[in-house]
Amino acid sequence: MKRIAILGSTGSIGRSTLSVVEAHPERFSVVALAAGSNVAAALEQAKRWRPRLLSMATSRAADELARKLKGAGCGDIEVVHGSAGAIRVATHPEVDFVVSAIVGVAGLEATYEAVRAGKSVGLANKECLVAAGELITAEAKKHGKPLLPIDSEHNAVHQCMRGGRLEEVQSVWLTASGGPFLDTPASEFSRITVEEALNHPTWKMGQRITIDSATLMNKGFEVIEACRLFGLAPSRVKVIVHPQSTIHSLVEFVDGSLLAQLSVTDMRLPILYALTWPERIPSGLRYSVNDLRHLDFRQPDMQKFPCLALAYEAAEAGGARTVALNAADEVAVAAFLEGSIGFDEIPRVIRDVLKETDVRHPESIKQVLAMDSEARQLARERVEQLKSRKAGTRRPVVAK
Amino acid sequence: MKRIAILGSTGSIGRSTLSVVEAHPERFSVVALAAGSNVAAALEQAKRWRPRLLSMATSRAADELARKLKGAGCGDIEVVHGSAGAIRVATHPEVDFVVSAIVGVAGLEATYEAVRAGKSVGLANKECLVAAGELITAEAKKHGKPLLPIDSEHNAVHQCMRGGRLEEVQSVWLTASGGPFLDTPASEFSRITVEEALNHPTWKMGQRITIDSATLMNKGFEVIEACRLFGLAPSRVKVIVHPQSTIHSLVEFVDGSLLAQLSVTDMRLPILYALTWPERIPSGLRYSVNDLRHLDFRQPDMQKFPCLALAYEAAEAGGARTVALNAADEVAVAAFLEGSIGFDEIPRVIRDVLKETDVRHPESIKQVLAMDSEARQLARERVEQLKSRKAGTRRPVVAK
Repeated sequence: MKRIAILGSTGSIGRSTLSVVEAHPERFSVVALAAGSNVAAALEQAKRWRPRLLSMATSRAADELARKLKGAGCGDIEVVHGSAGAIRVATHPEVDFVVSAIVGVAGLEATYEAVRAGKSVGLANKECLVAAGELITAEAKKHGKPLLPIDSEHNAVHQCMRGGRLEEVQSVWLTASGGPFLDTPASEFSRITVEEALNHPTWKMGQRITIDSATLMNKGFEVIEACRLFGLAPSRVKVIVHPQSTIHSLVEFVDGSLLAQLSVTDMRLPILYALTWPERIPSGLRYSVNDLRHLDFRQPDMQKFPCLALAYEAAEAGGARTVALNAADEVAVAAFLEGSIGFDEIPRVIRDVLKETDVRHPESIKQVLAMDSEARQLARERVEQLKSRKAGTRRPVVAK
Repeated sequence: MKRIAILGSTGSIGRSTLSVVEAHPERFSVVALAAGSNVAAALEQAKRWRPRLLSMATSRAADELARKLKGAGCGDIEVVHGSAGAIRVATHPEVDFVVSAIVGVAGLEATYEAVRAGKSVGLANKECLVAAGELITAEAKKHGKPLLPIDSEHNAVHQCMRGGRLEEVQSVWLTASGGPFLDTPASEFSRITVEEALNHPTWKMGQRITIDSATLMNKGFEVIEACRLFGLAPSRVKVIVHPQSTIHSLVEFVDGSLLAQLSVTDMRLPILYALTWPERIPSGLRYSVNDLRHLDFRQPDMQKFPCLALAYEAAEAGGARTVALNAADEVAVAAFLEGSIGFDEIPRVIRDVLKETDVRHPESIKQVLAMDSEARQLARERVEQLKSRKAGTRRPVVAK
């Protein structure tokens, strides 16, 4: 029986994880959950899963939940809150495996503490590797515990890597759907609306990651994640556009063989893989090979999608630059979503922030968070400049 | 240093194996060679590789080679001949690894003896698994020694299998180029000429295997080989047509993940893989992922290509039926090549021979060879019937 904690239990990955647990009650039990501020969802999960410990984002939400749990006869569930609460969930002594799925830098500290406490960790939080990857992977190595990727690309790489030893890997090829603007001329990028950018061709995801997919920044983050997860230089992690998203990634070995992983696009697959590794168990999610028809590929256009090139630059520098890449992108994407800057200005904001960020290597999550704040501040200033420079210019119409 | 014997050293796979050995003198040495009747080629190889032992197919060729070797100052190389000679090569005490690449049933006995002598074996000879697979795999299992496939499809499967345990494999998907008649209506099959059938779209190979690719019988043999090599029921080994032959095969795991192997189409890759397994070393044969454009797939049409269906039937029955499948196919293909029967009559000959073959399981290579002779006789009789029935009918024009 694997005893599980979920950081971000009410989010999409958290809910998918619970559905995987539900399908395999003989294998998994839920010990601790860290939810956000959605008390109703957390209450439901608490009643269904009866964890020992449940953490909410705020004390207010925690108080409300505790009250309702008592009313529901679940007063034995301990309710905590905040980042200290999330850390208690992540390091609960009865937990074997922690699913790290809190979105944004909020999940960093708890994930880091889970690794430090010697837990096996499934990583769905991008920032853990992009912003704090050097710290977290070093710690996991020290404890000899696996960091298992819970996203389709790195999970695919993890699977393909089994075909050889790490020293036998020549390159990793991350596939990219290419987003909605694969065939849009760069000259039209300044006129791209929010609605158009949110219309991703293959995956339905949150707003930020959808925009990051449209700029290819998401693939850039994945390059950095792959470098850190698998200990590869950025030059060994490559991107190939594959609009069908059927092959989730490939690993090229020194002998010239490539292994590719294919599956249906369902997050329960990488979650199950991470939870059961090194075993595989039936998921009920079969890919119909007989329905395979055409797979298309092309090279990414780094000039048209400068975010990808910026990510490679940040990956080469590491440290504060990758922290800044993530922070500046989050600010720039938010500014685009609220109509303050154009689609083509997202990479400009990020480029300027990277330029102003010295390469330093954080030695603690606290330092990562400080670098993150600094980069956000720089990005906000840059957004303001762009706004004021363009004051009076018509911005693209923003979809609700 | 891995010490190698090659059964079939002057054939295509034998020569490719020697070029792999040549590229890695620090890893491999050549101890013994079994050639065919080409004395000039064997002499060249003997002078270059200085094996301890060299076997020729006939005593005449052996005598001629021995004379020439003495003249060339290589009188220390022992020259033997025939199947006893090939067995001495396969079981030479200084040999670690035997490459089995003698075409046809001639290679069976020597390969079987190599396995019985506890050698690691790389299998390029189809008959070893199709006709004698039950015997050979049982023997390899007994000795705990690997049978490593040296052909692109099973080598791909072997690589993909590393992504999980055997019990975690749901299905194996062998890719088929589909041959030159993928889009030819079945109604035109009786008019297919030898020249058309020898025009394979992706691989340049010998005549029999090229015709076997055109009828899809080659894929049928590969289904049987996969069943025996990996211990899978025929229903778990599937075929998908993939005209580009870029993905060499796929393995589907119980969790719904598929791993696929891609590489350039060069036999030196599976040879190197087999010789170095479980390691991988640089081959210089890189597949350019950036040149990937389109991969197409479709289901095989078993009605149009009845040879594939016949192979599944034989695979289910096993024993004498798979021996007969191979023997009848060889006779039928030869009859087609000499213009005696039509392309559409190849499966008819095989079907009739299978019908007349009782399911018995051979207990020795001698029994396999007896079953083989019997099936060949039946096939020749069937060919004669077809010829006499059609006497007076114009046969398709035969290309030289």
